[in-house]
Amino acid sequence: MIVTEQTRPEPQPIPGVAHATWAGAAEGLAGLSVWRQTLAPGATTPPHRHDADEVVICLDGEGEACEGDEVRRFRAGQVVTLPAGREHRLTNVGAASLELVAVIAGTPVATWLPDGSVLQLPWRT
Amino acid sequence: MIVTEQTRPEPQPIPGVAHATWAGAAEGLAGLSVWRQTLAPGATTPPHRHDADEVVICLDGEGEACEGDEVRRFRAGQVVTLPAGREHRLTNVGAASLELVAVIAGTPVATWLPDGSVLQLPWRT
Repeated sequence: MIVTEQTRPEPQPIPGVAHATWAGAAEGLAGLSVWRQTLAPGATTPPHRHDADEVVICLDGEGEACEGDEVRRFRAGQVVTLPAGREHRLTNVGAASLELVAVIAGTPVATWLPDGSVLQLPWRT
Repeated sequence: MIVTEQTRPEPQPIPGVAHATWAGAAEGLAGLSVWRQTLAPGATTPPHRHDADEVVICLDGEGEACEGDEVRRFRAGQVVTLPAGREHRLTNVGAASLELVAVIAGTPVATWLPDGSVLQLPWRT
């Protein structure tokens, strides 16, 4: 058992994306990651997929989630459920920061780009 | 992909425990659950274990986590990481509600009591 602080997201090499890993392999887990992320207005993640289920909890702001051809808006107070293996991306479509907690059923979190190559995430997973 | 509301926890048969399932098998997931829970002052979960990693995100209040013989306090702004397979319980040790998001790397979430019997959770997992 480990008790840690909910650390603030820090800027990352992905433009407009800040990230903090709240829990994962380093905390003794084998199959679960908890990330805290901030997307600046207009920022977007690369399109990508994981081999594990993901749930995004929106704390503040307005976002757009794309999964394949499906596009859905979401906002503070909502939850986005992204089953394993499907390509997705998240974009901040609001005027304020998009504040998220993302939980993924794996650690480390394997991530692939649409061309099948591995996306090397710039944070610990 | 599903977008849902962050529903409010509703009272449960476990005294002092309110619960809302934000994501799980019903949302198309195979290996991840997200729960929102409120423990009233003094309320405690039964001691139990899962066969999956769990992370508890404390939104408000003051809690105590017991895992085996280890006892740790936690509060709003902290994260409690509970690796799979270890018996634990959570208790509200503060004067206000203990507000939690619990994420577990499984769905349905198998749960056992200390005597090895299955704890039938009163909510959908």
